[in-house]
Amino acid sequence: MIQALPQLKPWMIEQAELLPVGASLPWEMVFDSLPFGSDGLLPAVAQQYDTGEVLMLAWMNRAALRETLATGHVCYWSRSRARLWRKGETSGHVQHLRELRLDCDGDALLLLVEQTGPACHTGRVSCFYNAVRGNRVEVISPAMQRSRDD
Amino acid sequence: MIQALPQLKPWMIEQAELLPVGASLPWEMVFDSLPFGSDGLLPAVAQQYDTGEVLMLAWMNRAALRETLATGHVCYWSRSRARLWRKGETSGHVQHLRELRLDCDGDALLLLVEQTGPACHTGRVSCFYNAVRGNRVEVISPAMQRSRDD
Repeated sequence: MIQALPQLKPWMIEQAELLPVGASLPWEMVFDSLPFGSDGLLPAVAQQYDTGEVLMLAWMNRAALRETLATGHVCYWSRSRARLWRKGETSGHVQHLRELRLDCDGDALLLLVEQTGPACHTGRVSCFYNAVRGNRVEVISPAMQRSRDD
Repeated sequence: MIQALPQLKPWMIEQAELLPVGASLPWEMVFDSLPFGSDGLLPAVAQQYDTGEVLMLAWMNRAALRETLATGHVCYWSRSRARLWRKGETSGHVQHLRELRLDCDGDALLLLVEQTGPACHTGRVSCFYNAVRGNRVEVISPAMQRSRDD
């Protein structure tokens, strides 16, 4: 009796699961099989490469991901403006990409970045400046300089 | 001439934007106004509280968020299984919540956690073990122990 094996598309990122450190898959083929959502987007977490601070979470479509890797400057997809959002294009608070990582099933991206100025449009280093403490949400970091746009 | 002000619902998290460090808003009211998506979910990033390593990205609905804060053990919503996912319920690889943070517009969550065992079902400390390097995607961290379920 022949047992059906789970069907994996060629070069899906899940194939990396059993690989040892240093082994690799071809990026172009993995890229083609990434599970972008029905809206064409994947969540992308930006983390400051040296301090480890999580700066923000935004979204990328295929074009944003391609551009980010091609230029080394992080480009997201703005859901509110429905267009590519070259981070820092007006504020100057750009993110230089140090490394892009994919999670085990390729449906989330981690960007190790070198952030120029504050990442948050409120002028704070990180967008995650609200902490739930007991029955309150408390502001835990000060604004440095405010951007009119980010 | 009276100019219309932007309408903010009471106690939206955006109201924290202009607050100084240490000021706070009532959590229950902020919770009620959080912008869960049309699928009822928000992305949640888990970060190891002491090393700063980003462990995984998963999703929370209102019930998962409430349970996580009430118990101090991280509970997600599993999109694939369409049910609450108490992280580590079968593997033992639980996440103790140290602090929950919200971003500037409340549409992303950051969980500072104390992870027991590997966060990834592949047995790796973090799910983000695939790095894009040139035209390859390279495995950058070894498996510790594999979970049948996470």
